[in-house]
Amino acid sequence: MEQELVDWLKKRLPSHPALRLGIGDDAAVVDLGGSTECVVTVDAVMDGVDFELAKIDPRRAGHKALAVNLSDLAAMAARPVAAVVALVLPRRDGYNLAVKLFEGMLPLAERHNVAIAGGDTNTWDGPLVVSITAIGRPGPRGVWRRDGARPGDDILVTGSFGGSLAGRHLDFEPRVREALVLAERYEIHAAIDVSDGLSLDLSRLAEASGCGAAVAVDQVPIADAAHELARTQSDGRTALDHAVADGEDFELVLAAPPNIADRILAEQPLDISITRIGQFASNRGLWQLAAGGQLMPLSARGYVHRSSGTLAEAP
Amino acid sequence: MEQELVDWLKKRLPSHPALRLGIGDDAAVVDLGGSTECVVTVDAVMDGVDFELAKIDPRRAGHKALAVNLSDLAAMAARPVAAVVALVLPRRDGYNLAVKLFEGMLPLAERHNVAIAGGDTNTWDGPLVVSITAIGRPGPRGVWRRDGARPGDDILVTGSFGGSLAGRHLDFEPRVREALVLAERYEIHAAIDVSDGLSLDLSRLAEASGCGAAVAVDQVPIADAAHELARTQSDGRTALDHAVADGEDFELVLAAPPNIADRILAEQPLDISITRIGQFASNRGLWQLAAGGQLMPLSARGYVHRSSGTLAEAP
Repeated sequence: MEQELVDWLKKRLPSHPALRLGIGDDAAVVDLGGSTECVVTVDAVMDGVDFELAKIDPRRAGHKALAVNLSDLAAMAARPVAAVVALVLPRRDGYNLAVKLFEGMLPLAERHNVAIAGGDTNTWDGPLVVSITAIGRPGPRGVWRRDGARPGDDILVTGSFGGSLAGRHLDFEPRVREALVLAERYEIHAAIDVSDGLSLDLSRLAEASGCGAAVAVDQVPIADAAHELARTQSDGRTALDHAVADGEDFELVLAAPPNIADRILAEQPLDISITRIGQFASNRGLWQLAAGGQLMPLSARGYVHRSSGTLAEAP
Repeated sequence: MEQELVDWLKKRLPSHPALRLGIGDDAAVVDLGGSTECVVTVDAVMDGVDFELAKIDPRRAGHKALAVNLSDLAAMAARPVAAVVALVLPRRDGYNLAVKLFEGMLPLAERHNVAIAGGDTNTWDGPLVVSITAIGRPGPRGVWRRDGARPGDDILVTGSFGGSLAGRHLDFEPRVREALVLAERYEIHAAIDVSDGLSLDLSRLAEASGCGAAVAVDQVPIADAAHELARTQSDGRTALDHAVADGEDFELVLAAPPNIADRILAEQPLDISITRIGQFASNRGLWQLAAGGQLMPLSARGYVHRSSGTLAEAP
């Protein structure tokens, strides 16, 4: 949610006894009175913003609409249980579009054992909107939050970054299983999923935790698509620029104590790579670990590394 | 959800051990494990379809967006606990619109003790969409469903019907408290809330229960707004026509055994009226109880009662 509105809501919303974790994290945690808490998240995707329906198989839009929500549950180490789907369909051929959207969601839902529990279908003259709410339950050790990182914790990431808009953003597999494996086996202090860019989401995690983050940029795992973009586009952005700033990677960023991080890195318990890219620091803000251990500011919106050694914000 | 899509989904969706009640009722019931069940419903409202944003205070749109969801929980006799809000905002003045929408939701949320737990904010070039998911918990006797009415049960309704589009549809109070009082004190077999029209939603309840419904149309409580519409419009529709077919009343229709219905009617336990309008019957379909106890077909889409005594479907 947009930061300005989040700030307004945090001031305006009354406290509520059932709310264990409210606005500002990847998902909310609600106490329904039984012995289990409910982890809930909502995300809407729209034609013309999150995809171009005229150019893609609508099944990919359906997949993405559910996947972004499951990614939010993964960022909380919550086990997904169910999802409800609100569709706002264009009038023309709405039924067939709806069927294709669900056909895109269902294999993903089945892989992660998510029940499509209900929905709401509407038709209008505007473009497609798909709003999905995913519901999960915390694992036995509770949820991961954004605000638990401590100075000295290592920064770990799953997978690789950059160039997602070339196609991966429509087909990515949310890191649900990976999160559950990590949460079960290791002490993780904080987590976030990368929707808006590695540097931006890392800075949000650090900010929520009241600390800073220092990134060894040469350690950031770069996706093939980022190399491809750097090679084929003439805007001067390097593959690393793409990896740090592109967004929609939907990988996990984790804070773990160094001894735990060492174990994770040695054991590599996932089917995908897990990499250390830096450390949380007591200096607030986002930093780049330069040669010799020096800290230099790193923009949370992406950066351009010039040969002079100065850093400038990317457009 | 549109019936054709519901039918497709019911065939296509795999069963799921956590799903206690899936697509087709007013809300879903999900087992989160550890004795916790979650009642969940989603509804989206759109500018130009559910309201005309240019003509109303946006707070009323915010109120309606939450109220339609709480009405679905009321139809299940579920106690609302939390809601998450996805906003798709027009680019121009989006922040101020969002604030007003929340200002419209918050008093309603506070009256019913609902936590606004989270959300998602998006901006685009299209019109406003507000998609809200409301989460509740079942009462001690479980939820009301649509499929529990039995032939011989009385048909009870809260409040009065018709003419909602003259304004009440934006400002109605969902029957949350009324549902909780009734569920706690009385044995209710089935329930639905009236979103699409008394006759249509009653026929849905009857159909889901595998029985018919016979309405004593002269017993249907008619809202003042329906009388006003009949008086001021020249389309020939009576106040009763409006009451039976208009929709967006968001009152409750209930099935109760006759002895229980007698008690409810005698005790009138609510701050609003509760009225008996007929009886469920073994003959499937929707019927009008004519003088002498004769059953005549009643259209589920509204009707025009002609002086000849024939019934024709309203346009």
